[in-house]
Amino acid sequence: MNLHAIHHLPDANYAYPYDKETLHLRLRTAKDDVNQVTLHAGDPYEWKSGGGGGNLNAEGAMGWVYEEIVMQKEASTDLFDFWFAEVKPPYRRSRYGFMIENDQQKVFCGDTGLFVLDADNEAAVLGHIGNYFCHPFLNAADVFETPEWAKNTVWYQIFPERFNNADPTISPEGVLPWGSEDPWWYTFFGGDLLGITEKLDYLVDLGINGIYLCPIFTSPSTHKYDTEDYFEIDPHFGTKETFRQFVELAHAKGIKIMLDMVVNHCGYNFGPWQDVLAHGENSEYKDWFHIRNFPVSRVEEEGLPNYDAFAFSKRMPKMRTENPAVRDYFLKVARYWVEEFDIDGWRLDVANEVDHVFWREFRKEVRAVKDDIYILGEVWHDANPWLRGDQFDAVMNYPLTNAINDFIAKDKMTAKEFVDTIARVQVMYSRNVAEVNFNLLGSHDTARLLTLCNDNKQKALLAYTFLITQPGSPCVYYGDEIGMNGGNDPGCRKCMVWDEDLQDHDMFTYFKNIINLRKKHPALRSIEMKWLATGDEEVLLFKKIAPNETIYVVINNSDAIKTVDLSTILTDNHTDLLTTKTLASTSETTILPYTALWLK
Amino acid sequence: MNLHAIHHLPDANYAYPYDKETLHLRLRTAKDDVNQVTLHAGDPYEWKSGGGGGNLNAEGAMGWVYEEIVMQKEASTDLFDFWFAEVKPPYRRSRYGFMIENDQQKVFCGDTGLFVLDADNEAAVLGHIGNYFCHPFLNAADVFETPEWAKNTVWYQIFPERFNNADPTISPEGVLPWGSEDPWWYTFFGGDLLGITEKLDYLVDLGINGIYLCPIFTSPSTHKYDTEDYFEIDPHFGTKETFRQFVELAHAKGIKIMLDMVVNHCGYNFGPWQDVLAHGENSEYKDWFHIRNFPVSRVEEEGLPNYDAFAFSKRMPKMRTENPAVRDYFLKVARYWVEEFDIDGWRLDVANEVDHVFWREFRKEVRAVKDDIYILGEVWHDANPWLRGDQFDAVMNYPLTNAINDFIAKDKMTAKEFVDTIARVQVMYSRNVAEVNFNLLGSHDTARLLTLCNDNKQKALLAYTFLITQPGSPCVYYGDEIGMNGGNDPGCRKCMVWDEDLQDHDMFTYFKNIINLRKKHPALRSIEMKWLATGDEEVLLFKKIAPNETIYVVINNSDAIKTVDLSTILTDNHTDLLTTKTLASTSETTILPYTALWLK
Repeated sequence: MNLHAIHHLPDANYAYPYDKETLHLRLRTAKDDVNQVTLHAGDPYEWKSGGGGGNLNAEGAMGWVYEEIVMQKEASTDLFDFWFAEVKPPYRRSRYGFMIENDQQKVFCGDTGLFVLDADNEAAVLGHIGNYFCHPFLNAADVFETPEWAKNTVWYQIFPERFNNADPTISPEGVLPWGSEDPWWYTFFGGDLLGITEKLDYLVDLGINGIYLCPIFTSPSTHKYDTEDYFEIDPHFGTKETFRQFVELAHAKGIKIMLDMVVNHCGYNFGPWQDVLAHGENSEYKDWFHIRNFPVSRVEEEGLPNYDAFAFSKRMPKMRTENPAVRDYFLKVARYWVEEFDIDGWRLDVANEVDHVFWREFRKEVRAVKDDIYILGEVWHDANPWLRGDQFDAVMNYPLTNAINDFIAKDKMTAKEFVDTIARVQVMYSRNVAEVNFNLLGSHDTARLLTLCNDNKQKALLAYTFLITQPGSPCVYYGDEIGMNGGNDPGCRKCMVWDEDLQDHDMFTYFKNIINLRKKHPALRSIEMKWLATGDEEVLLFKKIAPNETIYVVINNSDAIKTVDLSTILTDNHTDLLTTKTLASTSETTILPYTALWLK
Repeated sequence: MNLHAIHHLPDANYAYPYDKETLHLRLRTAKDDVNQVTLHAGDPYEWKSGGGGGNLNAEGAMGWVYEEIVMQKEASTDLFDFWFAEVKPPYRRSRYGFMIENDQQKVFCGDTGLFVLDADNEAAVLGHIGNYFCHPFLNAADVFETPEWAKNTVWYQIFPERFNNADPTISPEGVLPWGSEDPWWYTFFGGDLLGITEKLDYLVDLGINGIYLCPIFTSPSTHKYDTEDYFEIDPHFGTKETFRQFVELAHAKGIKIMLDMVVNHCGYNFGPWQDVLAHGENSEYKDWFHIRNFPVSRVEEEGLPNYDAFAFSKRMPKMRTENPAVRDYFLKVARYWVEEFDIDGWRLDVANEVDHVFWREFRKEVRAVKDDIYILGEVWHDANPWLRGDQFDAVMNYPLTNAINDFIAKDKMTAKEFVDTIARVQVMYSRNVAEVNFNLLGSHDTARLLTLCNDNKQKALLAYTFLITQPGSPCVYYGDEIGMNGGNDPGCRKCMVWDEDLQDHDMFTYFKNIINLRKKHPALRSIEMKWLATGDEEVLLFKKIAPNETIYVVINNSDAIKTVDLSTILTDNHTDLLTTKTLASTSETTILPYTALWLK
């Protein structure tokens, strides 16, 4: 057996309380190296001789009572297999270990390491409770509670300056006619909140039930990630009253609202920073920032700032969140928009560069105001340190984005690499996270999907078709559904196209269909996913499994018409949910280029 | 290269802020599989084209500025090598990856996985910043601050009922004459706080500078882990005034005081539990516990309790620490003994079964009162989930205990297994923890070392001699220093022997010597430890390295006189610190059975 590959961690995505009764456990082994893994799990104090013991030092003590649970193979990457089991410890305490077997060996994996078992040592190894991993107590306070509604949400991300200009009276000076040219970093088109409100029925029609709004607080820029006033709506977007009406109407239509906040840094015009510029070392706000020396660099000066900033941008001074005054200020902001406007989520910009202590307080404070608020951190890399239940519910799931875009949009990844990468994403976090993670194919920070697809619309649709089958909450970046394209910022921030002659109605109809199917079919949202072989490397097949439903997904990520034999997998006739066509159980199922089948 | 073995985690013991400027990074590879590991680490926004970028999506973007740091092999187990490096990111942000090389291959390990590099892909893999791990910002709030003093502390653990009875007027009814018989679970001998105070000079003579006191709050038992009143000193131990004088005198003699508190469960006599017993469902304290149904089981009834308890003990109902009232109560207790009596540490019993949320609050509260208080959790297994800087400073380091006892005391472990296990312990936690971890060879919960050694005193001394060379803060269990023995509880809780005729004075002198040498020689306390070959499997040799000092430790864990060739290692004459003898650099250094040399 490949001992080097065997891995468990009594922590993070490998061992966690899924709910108040259930512990989830994972084990990693080398790929195809192991026939069976059996979890041994029991209460440390339950012995055949009767409960009440407690001397865990007893060595080779026999008679410890434990369950044996055969683990399921959950996912496989190029190197590894991942095994999963859940256990409901009757007294909420668990000691557990893994019996790993193949034709040659039996290996025990526990807290003190690996033991290759034989007739001589097996009883002693298994009988010593100190050899087992420990999840000491399933305390309710440690359970990772994510909002139930987020599991069934389809988001729509809006860059407000570019969605719809409904009130020209509040547009910035020099505003350009809507969509009259491609945007530049400093060009305004006058998108506003009323504009979004007026399009809510459009979103309802599409099937959207969550809107993620990029920042709307006062700021001089088009993107507003350089906040001037965290307690005010940007006057070019509207007033608090416009915002209130927007949220109320959205809620009435069953749509959740998530705002975007930047705690990491402020804008140059933020009052406290302006005070530092004016008063230098005498400013009462000097400890709100990370200033290395005075006077602080001016934006018009050359060179790097003499204070910490976002990247090296003088316009975005980094906040000192370990200062209690700063912490209290941002916690007040966080509570304010929930308390006053009843928003449903916070998306947190550059969340990874802010300290964990702050985020723990943040969760506590906003959850105290609204107990099912969704907390989404912008973290592009492995985010386990933020995803243990004490900070965020979810992150911008760019590892999934990259896999889909590299495979479908860019043809940079083989089918095998794609399957491996999806498996890696699948086991990257706890299932609590996977159920609500924020799945996207593009954002205001990336080139648009259609552009990555070289404007091949069928590829873009296939990418969304796959995204929709993944657990979590998928997001449509505004305009993707009608065929908008655009390169990296500012290209991806074009004005939304409202001229119906310029919208792709077939795409819209397709999006509407897959969104509604997802909402209707639990299997499409489910965690459980098993890949099956098709005999054709370019045709992928997997099944999604919910308690009362199984859906088979077939993907042809090639420019050729493919014929696959599904007769062994599906013995009866079956319906392609995407087309509603009934397909016979035949050995020659046809699948068009860059399309999918959802067979039920 | 063995790809399955390569492991890094941007978290826990693999990546952590050591101090406000320094990031520590570790990588694991298969043992003896790799020639060199080079850390690449840079600021994500620093590019040759000039700072200020920020588009981390750029693919294959060249010109990212990073340092290359050759990693040091820190430790080796039977299966793995561990590599270590520290980096001081100039702007406190880090993206980093590992270049791993052997004669056959060059492999890059980063956030997106492993890449076997070749001429075709190397530039693309290394040029894509998304492939690197991320430690986004070294925020001061996330730095794990442990008390400086704990690094130089030698603890002495006292079981108060059995240390010294100085005030017979407060002894419990039916108290037995001191040491007149071996203890049973319910026999009292009248040890008290005045008794400890009177022996402070004895401890000063031994070289002790920290006392860990088992619980002293009011309780009916001998061990007092079933607390009746968390705000009172047990009347058989003394009064608050006795305790205050004890702490003040200890402090005057340079001794820190650590108390033991049980948050996990209370005693049967605890007021709130008595209220539940009296008023059942109408008790205002019913939500202080985890009660499954009413009326609650009586201690005199058969069967398991119908409420959660420590193990299944009806006498020890588990506290519901997620209840804010319970949390506030215990936080008040925690603050009280620090504020009022200036204690220096809290040892937390059954700490692993209490929720993490509580412990985070606990740290915040007690550190606000005393910023260098030492927080020690009782966790016997992998404790990383409690050791990220937000909860405990240290844990009862039983994995080290078990290694030393299995190897030296019990002859259950080969020298090779011992070296492997010590290496595993070495890299188990961050260095912040390793520097202050609580290293012990026995406690009130285990059989005494000397008994494990079959009463071979030389072996017991050798075990302590090794313990003292390990980083962290070592602890002497009361009486070990004068040759006390005893089996598992209650055997390990015998009355301290004060009759000088019955004390082993040679042992005492030896303990005193090693304790004082440890305090004097930074190398004995240092983290850095390298094993060297002696050519004799029963003779172990390692060096301990401090910035200005290196000490070689030789251990003969056998019953034979050994001769080892140290001439290649030590070219000059050298002094054995233990005996102060000067030894010539000879190929025939003699080392007696079960002894050590500390060569400088």
